[in-house]
Amino acid sequence: MREIRDVFHLAIPAYDLDTTVDFYVGGLGCKLARRYDDRVTIDFFGDQLVCHLSAPPEVETPMEQLPMYPRHFGVTFRESQDFDALYHLCVQRKLPFYADVATRFDGLVEVHRTFVVCDPSSNLLEFKHYSDPRMMY
Amino acid sequence: MREIRDVFHLAIPAYDLDTTVDFYVGGLGCKLARRYDDRVTIDFFGDQLVCHLSAPPEVETPMEQLPMYPRHFGVTFRESQDFDALYHLCVQRKLPFYADVATRFDGLVEVHRTFVVCDPSSNLLEFKHYSDPRMMY
Amino acid sequence: MREIRDVFHLAIPAYDLDTTVDFYVGGLGCKLARRYDDRVTIDFFGDQLVCHLSAPPEVETPMEQLPMYPRHFGVTFRESQDFDALYHLCVQRKLPFYADVATRFDGLVEVHRTFVVCDPSSNLLEFKHYSDPRMMY
Amino acid sequence: MREIRDVFHLAIPAYDLDTTVDFYVGGLGCKLARRYDDRVTIDFFGDQLVCHLSAPPEVETPMEQLPMYPRHFGVTFRESQDFDALYHLCVQRKLPFYADVATRFDGLVEVHRTFVVCDPSSNLLEFKHYSDPRMMY
Amino acid sequence: MREIRDVFHLAIPAYDLDTTVDFYVGGLGCKLARRYDDRVTIDFFGDQLVCHLSAPPEVETPMEQLPMYPRHFGVTFRESQDFDALYHLCVQRKLPFYADVATRFDGLVEVHRTFVVCDPSSNLLEFKHYSDPRMMY
Amino acid sequence: MREIRDVFHLAIPAYDLDTTVDFYVGGLGCKLARRYDDRVTIDFFGDQLVCHLSAPPEVETPMEQLPMYPRHFGVTFRESQDFDALYHLCVQRKLPFYADVATRFDGLVEVHRTFVVCDPSSNLLEFKHYSDPRMMY
Amino acid sequence: MREIRDVFHLAIPAYDLDTTVDFYVGGLGCKLARRYDDRVTIDFFGDQLVCHLSAPPEVETPMEQLPMYPRHFGVTFRESQDFDALYHLCVQRKLPFYADVATRFDGLVEVHRTFVVCDPSSNLLEFKHYSDPRMMY
Amino acid sequence: MREIRDVFHLAIPAYDLDTTVDFYVGGLGCKLARRYDDRVTIDFFGDQLVCHLSAPPEVETPMEQLPMYPRHFGVTFRESQDFDALYHLCVQRKLPFYADVATRFDGLVEVHRTFVVCDPSSNLLEFKHYSDPRMMY
Repeated sequence: MREIRDVFHLAIPAYDLDTTVDFYVGGLGCKLARRYDDRVTIDFFGDQLVCHLSAPPEVETPMEQLPMYPRHFGVTFRESQDFDALYHLCVQRKLPFYADVATRFDGLVEVHRTFVVCDPSSNLLEFKHYSDPRMMY
Repeated sequence: MREIRDVFHLAIPAYDLDTTVDFYVGGLGCKLARRYDDRVTIDFFGDQLVCHLSAPPEVETPMEQLPMYPRHFGVTFRESQDFDALYHLCVQRKLPFYADVATRFDGLVEVHRTFVVCDPSSNLLEFKHYSDPRMMY
Repeated sequence: MREIRDVFHLAIPAYDLDTTVDFYVGGLGCKLARRYDDRVTIDFFGDQLVCHLSAPPEVETPMEQLPMYPRHFGVTFRESQDFDALYHLCVQRKLPFYADVATRFDGLVEVHRTFVVCDPSSNLLEFKHYSDPRMMY
Repeated sequence: MREIRDVFHLAIPAYDLDTTVDFYVGGLGCKLARRYDDRVTIDFFGDQLVCHLSAPPEVETPMEQLPMYPRHFGVTFRESQDFDALYHLCVQRKLPFYADVATRFDGLVEVHRTFVVCDPSSNLLEFKHYSDPRMMY
Repeated sequence: MREIRDVFHLAIPAYDLDTTVDFYVGGLGCKLARRYDDRVTIDFFGDQLVCHLSAPPEVETPMEQLPMYPRHFGVTFRESQDFDALYHLCVQRKLPFYADVATRFDGLVEVHRTFVVCDPSSNLLEFKHYSDPRMMY
Repeated sequence: MREIRDVFHLAIPAYDLDTTVDFYVGGLGCKLARRYDDRVTIDFFGDQLVCHLSAPPEVETPMEQLPMYPRHFGVTFRESQDFDALYHLCVQRKLPFYADVATRFDGLVEVHRTFVVCDPSSNLLEFKHYSDPRMMY
Repeated sequence: MREIRDVFHLAIPAYDLDTTVDFYVGGLGCKLARRYDDRVTIDFFGDQLVCHLSAPPEVETPMEQLPMYPRHFGVTFRESQDFDALYHLCVQRKLPFYADVATRFDGLVEVHRTFVVCDPSSNLLEFKHYSDPRMMY
Repeated sequence: MREIRDVFHLAIPAYDLDTTVDFYVGGLGCKLARRYDDRVTIDFFGDQLVCHLSAPPEVETPMEQLPMYPRHFGVTFRESQDFDALYHLCVQRKLPFYADVATRFDGLVEVHRTFVVCDPSSNLLEFKHYSDPRMMY
């Protein structure tokens, strides 16, 4: 279990701040905490996401060719209904899916469901739910 | 405040799994949750850090030339004594400091203390403490 | 003590949505939850504030002539340091004070400190701290 | 999630204190915290409601003509059974309904059930339950 | 530690309901939950106190001759400041003290501070604070 | 909701300490906290019950003639399964029932189930479960 | 209920540290907290297990002849699904069962399900679930 | 952090049940949960200790020659005042100290205070407090 009083923070690139706010607040339903000229900070499921204005790469990689490893982030939900609700939200609001919902590690204790969406700056977000909550770590 | 039952997860590159475990478990005092051939998962201050075995870049960047932005991660502590204790641990165990403890945004409500350490795969970890806890997001 | 899982919600008038977001998010340090054409919703210290776009009154009342009673709202802090931090924020960010910090009911068990700020739509926000926390209700 | 230790407080007009206590304590099942000559304070679902004795308007507006916007308040329940129980209580105790239970924003992520009752001083109270709890803000 | 979700309830005699409400709500600062013709229910420091209208004894015992044993009730506070605040309230509001604050079992692990007040129906209420919180049971 | 850190304490008469421990610990499944020559203290569902050795009345009242009002005590459970489990325990361990399980106030919001057992010193213990948890006070 | 902030710690013998880590981390899904030359410390379901490197007995006792009493340890789960999940994990990962799942004390309030596994150093671990959670102590 | 709802349980030998209850309940201030002919169960700082009646060894080892490793158990306190209070209790009630309070690992992050008492069946109980709470595991 994690300390409720502390906050994880993650800094990622954002090619455009307005689009970033649209995606995280208007899309994913996160909250906008602060906005500066060079970054926005998001209350991302209770943790802090800092989106730093950054130049996009000279050659844009199509979403389907983005590498899933080694870099991505997201939330592992304790309750399956929270996973389901977020998946439902992503479908209903037509967020871009990099990988639709699927089951990994079937037959192992580590079995979990997962889906991946892509933010406007090519950051991949994975959301997961494990059958056995002790495997969340 | 964040949901205590959910877990943030972050996937990052690791050039070598043994060194990674040494740094995060033996150094930072995190816990090893699972080990596979191609990755280790760490209980990182209550969240999940997945370190994926990845080829190091062909040309290694010296730590002091690593860019702080846009990518880094860490924990923002609610209580200053937790920040102090972790700083003390990093000094005592001689973890490599990218940036020693310093105060940012002095004179603003956003004022906070911060220090940055570097893991063996050139990932930068920032730990913070805000004077006003409402600024943690 | 209140149920942590439920949320109080309050709907108030807003004469202009941008100014409202500036005041509550950029000023008071609350979080923007959702924005529509006719309203914004704010995560106001953990509760929901819905600011509905409304026509301002034909004749504007100067702040100092606004009536404190019977309508105002705010937060009563359990810990004095949270009250102090918010007062410090309001001063540092130059939010408009309707009433500077003062002590009410001195000599009674109900004694508390209080200050009042005014949002851009003439809504009065009172923040309080009671010496005896049992008097918070 | 909100801070359990802090309390939202809302001040509203009350045309008569006895009737107000009858409605909030005897009707809605809230608790009476304090009573003074000019106001009563209510523990309203864990937050503080201060009902200030105020002169009623010279011309009374019939309930059905009261404006729902921009001013009303209430509780958003996390669990549907709490919403159901309060609706059941309001029906059983014959509290005056301004709007019977209905579903808003069907087909959107923001979909929620809502009903509105009216206190003896023409204050409108809305109670809500969202299908997706992340939309409570 | 006790289950936060359950409630202790205690039924006691009350010779007069108005006086009882005055003492518990206006005096001790508890909350009135419900009132019926034959009883009132009080939110007594988070537990339920039911005061049943009862005929007083034919011969009234003066307070100082009331027996402390075997029947009395009250709250044992975990934090000394909560004990101090309630003692301060009882003094300031001139509640009738059956026994002023005193230390019992000095020199033993069970050492605690205690004071006793008397309600209008001759019920004795004892409030305690133990130096070692493990002795609260 | 009650403060988890504080403890309600109730002092009651006990005609014999061994029998009292048998009833509360061996019967009801409470825990023995402390034993002295003149009293035992019980961790009674998380609160403190102090059973003071007292002379029994000269004429014993048969259980069925004991008055339920104004004095009795017990626990109101938030969850019906906790009420059911305790009733099951009382039946299985053959504790003396003063009143078998029954429903009171059917048709009202205050509707609840209740049963009453009697300890060896003629103290009546009532356990309750309300359909609407807001009626627990 | 136990104090969430404190930790139970238990020291047990380990004949080999690698095998011990394999069993507790790779098998039971616990977390490795610290490793020294002469011991490893495990985050064992939230408590601390210290496995001290110890010489095995000269004559090894076959598992089925190990005595269950008086020494063994484990976890009593509050929720049956947590018990089920751990049993499922032990079966799926083929941990050595000393005693397969069984019901004890059927017909008594103390009825519970239990199974026992054996670690590589002949320590017996029992996991339990009681029908009535008040019997967990 | 550990799951508050689950309970660690440890079974140990007891040469005599009365002496065992005297030590754990009357001495250490734990609570007696259940007593059977062949064992007693103790609520040991919120976890379950089962003391099984066992024949003492034929040759008794004097306390000072008992081995501290590999078997002992106890509690690691999060707050130093809880450690201090228990040490004070052990001194005041003259429990047999196997090792008086001392500091281990001075100069390391793992630095902690510790003392060890011995129960009547030669079980060693260690209580600890770490300067850095992250080292509790």
